[in-house]
Amino acid sequence: MAEYKAPLRDMQFVLNEVLHMDAHYQQLPGCEEATPDMVSAILEEGAKFAERVLSPLNQVGDQEGCQYQDGEVKTPTGFKEAYAAFVEGGWPSLAHDPEWGGQGLPESLGIVINEMVGTANWAWSMYPGLSHGAMNTLDAHGTEEQKQTYLTKLVSGEWTGTMCLTEPHCGTDLGMLRTKAEPQADGSYKITGTKIFISAGEHDLTDNIVHIVLARLPDAPAGTKGISLFIVPKFLPNAAGGVGERNALKCGSIEHKMGIHGNSTCVMNFDGATGFLIGPANKGLNCMFTFMNTARIGTALQGLAHAEWGFQNSLVYAKDRLQMRALSGVKNPDGAADPIIVHPAVRNMLLTQKAFAEGGRALIYFAAQQVDRSALSESAEEKQEAEDLLSLLTPIAKAFLTEVGFESANHGLQVFGGHGYIAEWGMEQNVRDCRISMLYEGTSQIQALDLLGRKILMSQGELLKRFTKMIHKFCQAHEGSAAMEPYTKTLAGLNKEWGELTLKVGMKAMQNREEVGAAAMDYLMYSGYITLAWLWARQAEVAHNALAAGTSEEAFYKAKLATARFYYDRLLPRTKMHADVMLSGADNLLALDSEHFIF
Amino acid sequence: MAEYKAPLRDMQFVLNEVLHMDAHYQQLPGCEEATPDMVSAILEEGAKFAERVLSPLNQVGDQEGCQYQDGEVKTPTGFKEAYAAFVEGGWPSLAHDPEWGGQGLPESLGIVINEMVGTANWAWSMYPGLSHGAMNTLDAHGTEEQKQTYLTKLVSGEWTGTMCLTEPHCGTDLGMLRTKAEPQADGSYKITGTKIFISAGEHDLTDNIVHIVLARLPDAPAGTKGISLFIVPKFLPNAAGGVGERNALKCGSIEHKMGIHGNSTCVMNFDGATGFLIGPANKGLNCMFTFMNTARIGTALQGLAHAEWGFQNSLVYAKDRLQMRALSGVKNPDGAADPIIVHPAVRNMLLTQKAFAEGGRALIYFAAQQVDRSALSESAEEKQEAEDLLSLLTPIAKAFLTEVGFESANHGLQVFGGHGYIAEWGMEQNVRDCRISMLYEGTSQIQALDLLGRKILMSQGELLKRFTKMIHKFCQAHEGSAAMEPYTKTLAGLNKEWGELTLKVGMKAMQNREEVGAAAMDYLMYSGYITLAWLWARQAEVAHNALAAGTSEEAFYKAKLATARFYYDRLLPRTKMHADVMLSGADNLLALDSEHFIF
Repeated sequence: MAEYKAPLRDMQFVLNEVLHMDAHYQQLPGCEEATPDMVSAILEEGAKFAERVLSPLNQVGDQEGCQYQDGEVKTPTGFKEAYAAFVEGGWPSLAHDPEWGGQGLPESLGIVINEMVGTANWAWSMYPGLSHGAMNTLDAHGTEEQKQTYLTKLVSGEWTGTMCLTEPHCGTDLGMLRTKAEPQADGSYKITGTKIFISAGEHDLTDNIVHIVLARLPDAPAGTKGISLFIVPKFLPNAAGGVGERNALKCGSIEHKMGIHGNSTCVMNFDGATGFLIGPANKGLNCMFTFMNTARIGTALQGLAHAEWGFQNSLVYAKDRLQMRALSGVKNPDGAADPIIVHPAVRNMLLTQKAFAEGGRALIYFAAQQVDRSALSESAEEKQEAEDLLSLLTPIAKAFLTEVGFESANHGLQVFGGHGYIAEWGMEQNVRDCRISMLYEGTSQIQALDLLGRKILMSQGELLKRFTKMIHKFCQAHEGSAAMEPYTKTLAGLNKEWGELTLKVGMKAMQNREEVGAAAMDYLMYSGYITLAWLWARQAEVAHNALAAGTSEEAFYKAKLATARFYYDRLLPRTKMHADVMLSGADNLLALDSEHFIF
Repeated sequence: MAEYKAPLRDMQFVLNEVLHMDAHYQQLPGCEEATPDMVSAILEEGAKFAERVLSPLNQVGDQEGCQYQDGEVKTPTGFKEAYAAFVEGGWPSLAHDPEWGGQGLPESLGIVINEMVGTANWAWSMYPGLSHGAMNTLDAHGTEEQKQTYLTKLVSGEWTGTMCLTEPHCGTDLGMLRTKAEPQADGSYKITGTKIFISAGEHDLTDNIVHIVLARLPDAPAGTKGISLFIVPKFLPNAAGGVGERNALKCGSIEHKMGIHGNSTCVMNFDGATGFLIGPANKGLNCMFTFMNTARIGTALQGLAHAEWGFQNSLVYAKDRLQMRALSGVKNPDGAADPIIVHPAVRNMLLTQKAFAEGGRALIYFAAQQVDRSALSESAEEKQEAEDLLSLLTPIAKAFLTEVGFESANHGLQVFGGHGYIAEWGMEQNVRDCRISMLYEGTSQIQALDLLGRKILMSQGELLKRFTKMIHKFCQAHEGSAAMEPYTKTLAGLNKEWGELTLKVGMKAMQNREEVGAAAMDYLMYSGYITLAWLWARQAEVAHNALAAGTSEEAFYKAKLATARFYYDRLLPRTKMHADVMLSGADNLLALDSEHFIF
């Protein structure tokens, strides 16, 4: 019943009108092919695939789930055919290096396509999605031979990849991992250990699966500085590069989860499996950090995805469902009641979803622009600047967007009243599928520590200063504009307060390191609200100019202005609470002895 | 893996030390038997039943769910036996009139028992829980004969009951309902129509099910003033009062839902079923309103239940799970890492759950006290006063506690990291089961309209004034107390602001009725935070006095003080945001034309 329609108008709005992606592509070496026409054509094809192939499989995937038997995993009906069509359409290779079979289009364009694919069917999207991590690892740290053997197969989509990090006793704390890698005479390694929560660890979509496994060499130092990366394929490649001997690894079981039932979450047992070292020994975590930002942007996308999906479907319902009359009088005299979209409380839920979905889109695309710049710019300075900005934005995007994405998914369900709780409408699946996003790729709390501890305080506030300067300049540029004042006045004030709060928290942290942990989550949410406020002000500016210049799309731009106003009036006041709480100190959390923590 | 332990110490704390329930019972006519010893004994027996019989069936119920076949519903393994034991133990009759076989104990004690039963296994608890509505209807509006025939069977637990309100096209808006009741020559009625979302509408726990059905007489006026109530039993009673002829009604299907899988949510088809009018014709909704408050307190309990359950289980996990070191240095030198309870972000989630669970308990029990007083007091004035207070507190308790209960359940899941998403730990079930509570018995948004529109503004602020006066007196009584100042200073300020905000919103509403709907949800949450702040201050007072007097339970009372402080420092600042938003006006919600609402 529920379905997805790619919001192409809004995607184009953010890409072209807000972020000027056309100019951005033209000035990046190797991206010249990404002309506006080309981008439009790709988006339209992507939309068709997402709407027609993936969206109809979303509910099927949830209801059937994956079936495990004797180490094999059967994906839900239609998943395999959809994957074949995805490969046939050339989608896996879109944003990869032509040297390994890619089409060489910019990474940001890949992210936009991922948005459509993921919103239509998040569980399905994780099969190609997880390959991404494996491809990035190989691309950055693999030898020529490794790239030739594995990367080309991943780029074509013929094989998929995984990242095998978590073990039963360690997720966040990878320093504790135990999987062993024993060197063999032929230069390979025997990998032994158990990995859990391996998304797409086993499935029936492709002939082979390439696992990137974190393990310890015999002489490795303890902790995070003794972790190395290994390529461990399900089938060892034969001489012709095809599928050869079965490797000594097996999926032991799959998890029964709250949601994303269509994706297999596997326990993977490595039993002396043959592996190949990738990158330098004991530097595995460092190697992974180089593209952690991209992976986290991929998960941040999930917040946007479920907000958008919930918004679309609850909006349709709110216009259709008749219940009660408007408090100010009958709006639909021909009906037995008014459509529920007339009620302010329903509109509040719809606008919250819209504000977070469209604001989130702007944030993701802006971050994607930095991904392009950090990868491709010819200026070392611009590269560094983009990388710094991205490293600041990544934890904000990941944690903030998934938190508000979950809130949005719940509003979508709530609009349906009791029907929202019933499976057939799809709204409760959207909530269940969304819930994982605040957990994997680092929980929200870990992102918050990364933001405040690592990105802000360890740079002595430098990364933040550069970002607040951008916001400051934006506000300055609009000084005296009556149209922009409702935004810039508030934004300038908050931007200033952001710096002051950072200073205060930083001073406290110098006295007591625990203050970082005590303030981090509120600091992160506060940062998220301001970041989105800046992006909503930018959207309002474009909309205002379009309306002032005259346009045939009045409805679209007016809705933008109404949503910007809603965001400033009804969502941004949350910063007050976060500011208060982050300054309340660590003592109200830590004074109580653990032993007194009882029920 | 997850389990429930009745928090008897805290329950006794709220009952005896905060609310002085012993004195309350002794001064209520008919409750003299509820001595402290008797209450203790009942709580202990209730705890055993909840912990040993119901808690172990909670996960089974979720995994097996109910099975539908040909109009029959099979409940999960063990549910039937547990129900038989419940009846055997005399639990259904606890708080009912001895005239119909009840034990005549106060309703508030029944609510405390419901807390344990419901927290251990919410899905199971809904079978006896739904009987409550049917019993209340019969008790208040049934004839002697109807009571003799049906009420006695419900009180003994031999039969269960339901409330059949919702139809496919109307839930909130009952005025639209279509089920017909045609008078027959013998004084009975033929009931025809389809009801949906009927909890416990069909099951295998008892021989008979008594449905209370809302339907329209042929000459009924349109809208809510044309609804009558009918008793429609699954089996018509025979001459001996036992199960006789099968009535013409049938469960058509059961819903596939997000949670509470162990409870059957039924489509009920009435096909000329024999029914008996209860209460006056066309006054069905009025009849129901008389006990709506009690039913809503029953649902408010669900917020507390899932917060408590999440807190207990995530606390155990947080003390056990080793991951990372504390930022201020190693706390657990013998372990590979520190238990995650050392991390401020984890404590923040634990304390949030504790503050809402224990604060919620105080609110529910306080409301339960008013239920007793409004039912049993011999003073008409006290009766009215209690009823008024209850009618103010009901929408707050129902909406606020279920909203923060859902937040709490999600914190419980989050503490487990990725494991929280996996079914076996039970944390995701807690979230799924909890989600319904914000929807049924009137959504949060409907409760908010009831509070602001009906209870506050329609009484010209009178109900609120009486409540804020109680809070004002409390603050006054502690003037000059250094121990209480951290609470009373903030509380007094907010209490004053509450009145001012009400006045401002009321003034706006006089200009534009839509302002009520636009402000209501934030007004309700604001009211909830203050109400709980008052109850936390009262708990802090008791804890402070106990510690000052010397106690062997230092840990318990210190934890109370720490939680009160946490509530004031880290949860209460949310009032600021709600105050801002509720004054932001209706225009930011309503200015956008429905047709411009697009994606």
